[in-house]
Amino acid sequence: MPEQPQLTIQGWGPAAGPRDATVARGADGGPGSLELTAFPDLAEVLPKAARRHLARELGWTPRRTPPVPVADIRLAPSRLAEDCRLRLVELLGDEHVSTDREARLRHAGGKSYLDLLRRREGDASDAPDAVVQPGSTEETAALLALCSEIGVVAVPFGGGTSVVGGLSGVDADDRPSVSVDLGRMASVHALDVASSLVTVGPGVRGPALEEHLGRHGLSLGHTPQSWEFATMGGYAATRSAGQASTGIGRFDDLVAGLTLATPSGVLELGSPPASAAGPDLLGLALGSEGALGVITELTLRVRPEPRARHHEGWSFRSWEAGLAGLQRLARHELLPDVIRLSDPDETRADLLNASGTGASLLRGSLRLRGRAAGCLLVVGWEGLPAAVRARRRAASSVLRGAGAVRLGTRVGESWRRHRYAAPYTRDSLLDAGLLVETLETAATWTALPTVHAAVREALRTSLGRRGKQPLVLTHVSHVYPTGASLYVTVLADRDDALPIQQWLSAKRAATDALLAAGGTLTHHHAVGADHRPWLEREIGALGVEVLRAVKQRLDPQDVCNPGVLLPD
Amino acid sequence: MPEQPQLTIQGWGPAAGPRDATVARGADGGPGSLELTAFPDLAEVLPKAARRHLARELGWTPRRTPPVPVADIRLAPSRLAEDCRLRLVELLGDEHVSTDREARLRHAGGKSYLDLLRRREGDASDAPDAVVQPGSTEETAALLALCSEIGVVAVPFGGGTSVVGGLSGVDADDRPSVSVDLGRMASVHALDVASSLVTVGPGVRGPALEEHLGRHGLSLGHTPQSWEFATMGGYAATRSAGQASTGIGRFDDLVAGLTLATPSGVLELGSPPASAAGPDLLGLALGSEGALGVITELTLRVRPEPRARHHEGWSFRSWEAGLAGLQRLARHELLPDVIRLSDPDETRADLLNASGTGASLLRGSLRLRGRAAGCLLVVGWEGLPAAVRARRRAASSVLRGAGAVRLGTRVGESWRRHRYAAPYTRDSLLDAGLLVETLETAATWTALPTVHAAVREALRTSLGRRGKQPLVLTHVSHVYPTGASLYVTVLADRDDALPIQQWLSAKRAATDALLAAGGTLTHHHAVGADHRPWLEREIGALGVEVLRAVKQRLDPQDVCNPGVLLPD
Repeated sequence: MPEQPQLTIQGWGPAAGPRDATVARGADGGPGSLELTAFPDLAEVLPKAARRHLARELGWTPRRTPPVPVADIRLAPSRLAEDCRLRLVELLGDEHVSTDREARLRHAGGKSYLDLLRRREGDASDAPDAVVQPGSTEETAALLALCSEIGVVAVPFGGGTSVVGGLSGVDADDRPSVSVDLGRMASVHALDVASSLVTVGPGVRGPALEEHLGRHGLSLGHTPQSWEFATMGGYAATRSAGQASTGIGRFDDLVAGLTLATPSGVLELGSPPASAAGPDLLGLALGSEGALGVITELTLRVRPEPRARHHEGWSFRSWEAGLAGLQRLARHELLPDVIRLSDPDETRADLLNASGTGASLLRGSLRLRGRAAGCLLVVGWEGLPAAVRARRRAASSVLRGAGAVRLGTRVGESWRRHRYAAPYTRDSLLDAGLLVETLETAATWTALPTVHAAVREALRTSLGRRGKQPLVLTHVSHVYPTGASLYVTVLADRDDALPIQQWLSAKRAATDALLAAGGTLTHHHAVGADHRPWLEREIGALGVEVLRAVKQRLDPQDVCNPGVLLPD
Repeated sequence: MPEQPQLTIQGWGPAAGPRDATVARGADGGPGSLELTAFPDLAEVLPKAARRHLARELGWTPRRTPPVPVADIRLAPSRLAEDCRLRLVELLGDEHVSTDREARLRHAGGKSYLDLLRRREGDASDAPDAVVQPGSTEETAALLALCSEIGVVAVPFGGGTSVVGGLSGVDADDRPSVSVDLGRMASVHALDVASSLVTVGPGVRGPALEEHLGRHGLSLGHTPQSWEFATMGGYAATRSAGQASTGIGRFDDLVAGLTLATPSGVLELGSPPASAAGPDLLGLALGSEGALGVITELTLRVRPEPRARHHEGWSFRSWEAGLAGLQRLARHELLPDVIRLSDPDETRADLLNASGTGASLLRGSLRLRGRAAGCLLVVGWEGLPAAVRARRRAASSVLRGAGAVRLGTRVGESWRRHRYAAPYTRDSLLDAGLLVETLETAATWTALPTVHAAVREALRTSLGRRGKQPLVLTHVSHVYPTGASLYVTVLADRDDALPIQQWLSAKRAATDALLAAGGTLTHHHAVGADHRPWLEREIGALGVEVLRAVKQRLDPQDVCNPGVLLPD
């Protein structure tokens, strides 16, 4: 295995504080590393005003709630029988089959609040029994056939950044499981510059791919918050959306073709640029979350590296005015590439969280204009300078017409600088007795206000009790002509006695509420283990049966990530 | 049934010559009508120069090859058993079940050259045994369940404009078939202006929908050549592309949700604006061609009616230069909404076919500039006036940089005026001893020149013989960042002895060639019966098995359009 940072049970570690895209670590710096001593102190990640605001709003007393030391994490012995291990070794080679403690811990679970809570408490019961590393499509297909034969569950592992329990490895039959690490399939296979297509292995990460493409003046441009660690295979398997997806499209839109290794053979899907030769099977592989097989190669659409980038802030008087403004931009196809409209609670938190003279000036300026309780909008454009100018001009005119006031580039650039920071901050907040989690959905413009209100209400009711209220911070993160997504961050005083139960109840209430109001179960985090109980409400009982029929054909022994996607 | 025009066996009738979108007939003017006497004469649809060109190039002697009179068409008695007919009547009502000759003939086959040849020869063996008209999703689901019970094949019928044998009704078990006419489900159910979404029945046609939307200042904008007759359900079932799809997207991109009635129940698919809740099942219904069930409702994305429209012509010195120019537009996201680049043979034919003083002037002007053998490009923009201006300016600069010369708006407007004309012209050409058919594909920019050359070569080899050569006219009709589609029109002297065999051989040669060169089986005409033998080459044996598994789950008795999509 490649050299890895020190093992950690934190979410994002090891470095303290936010990092810029341009200084992100390379492919070898996966989420991982560090013991307690290296944690950034709460004071380093939150200004005093923000800490006070949190304490006051949440009824929270900052306290030390550190994770157990890595050495104290409980890990049951591997359940993989020796004859099965030998079969795996025979196929992949001794160096690509690991059952040691460190490898298993490194591949235990993802990065949801529940995943982190469990590991912080020393519970690694979701760790795989072994970690295997196939090196090719053929080896992966053979591996899945072997797993079917010997009754071993296979859970693909890219960046390990699932926030919906996508790596849970839960199996109704309690069979042993292997984590299929895709780190050996992490190279660029082909670049067709004329057709704007690059073909890559599933383990390739954003920073490495951008570096490769940059040498040809090209870019993929997909930058979700997990960009430093997540892999191309993972983006495809979960139908990821990135921060600029409003402009360049969701990851779905960037996949021109892919190879899916299954226990029943290999599927080669996609006919770029487009085809009408029957239903879209490529779309069946996207979002399949490892439950139909393992994605072993992807052909992705690239574009010229943007020669101009412009990010700026605007302020709306209200959430309603902000939504109306975005809707107007969307209807006339004048959407910027990046759009992020914060609701009043998130705007207030953002302003409190911002530090430095610029932030003080901004707060003062907004107060002067009577916008202290308004909604912050960050917009960004990328591309040819002339196109950026023309699009900016057209969008600005619509925004002004919708009552927005321009705040300038400082707000936009600040967002850009901190855009990968939240997960790092979260680690410090978890150390100090807080519940911190996110959830997301999307709805049509007509349903969006109701969904927003319903989710807030559900979370506040579920998490509120005597003297305590959660903070529910929401922003629109992706905009479409027909609607938009909502990204919700929840902060609350943690229930130290039953922290997992506390969040499970809140998540259940929020999910029921958003579905009832017309939202989708997930806009870009996938189903995983966490959303399984609600899949039928999203696609219907017959829809679930169709997926089951496909799975049955490709994975008759149900060894492909059986703990995700399909309800029990 | 609604009042219908006089029965015909022609492709497009009854009116002679091309029509403009704005004067298109309404929903009751389906393809149909007229006896021989009403045919436009060849001289009316082709200028003398074009007729001479065809005679010279093809080795063709114009001759009268009229279809048999409608009364002479051979139609076997309905094979639907009386007890089955009564069950259908019990479900749908007497007035919605027809077994009479006229209803059956009206629903016989589609509009491919082979379909027309057969009917012109008096062969209606592909006519359904009955025509049924369900009125709702529930009735359609009940109908399909009943068909499964009594062993009757169900073939959905929208506009009847399939050009790939989509209505063939062929069944390996030779069971009786009913045509499921969707004409009763042709209304607009809901309009959500804020979310830019309209919900419609599957039988709604373009002109009626545009008229409805126009009253709200909205438009769908999907305008394939079959626009006057084709239905929304048909567009979705075949993954249609329209003339402005480069700008507004394929029909796939316009479908936000749909209802699919199947023998096993009803699927409600799609979560606008977007979802990551598992694989895209909506994408499975798109392109399902009636083989998984019947689409009974669609929610479509609409947009503001364009306030400005601009179409113009350009000339490239060569095909290669033209492709390079389009590729550059595509890479920088400066594509117009409409793009149509003709290769040298099509350009020559277009110029010969154009009549009037304007056309003479254009020919003279091109000759002066040494472009007589060049490639004609038609481009069009629609939308807000300022946006159209800005996009035109940016695209023009790229086109000039790629060596193109602007010809002005007359060429563009002429294209726009005649854009629904070709099928009408075809009827007249068929009457005069010609083979006329189209086929289409798409490929990446890298593969496109090879595909173009391979298809031309295959058709010329297959259709050429002593003193005779086909004309193979090609244009790029839809452009993507990663590639483009090719639309090929073939004209040849018909083999009066074995006309069907003549085209089957040519089609087979062309399809083998385009697949071998890296093209897709079909870019926007669907699989139908005609492309079935090649589906496995497109999606692989396992891909076909996945589709079969889905069909087996939804349609276990295989009554849903068993003659299309899946190979035997």
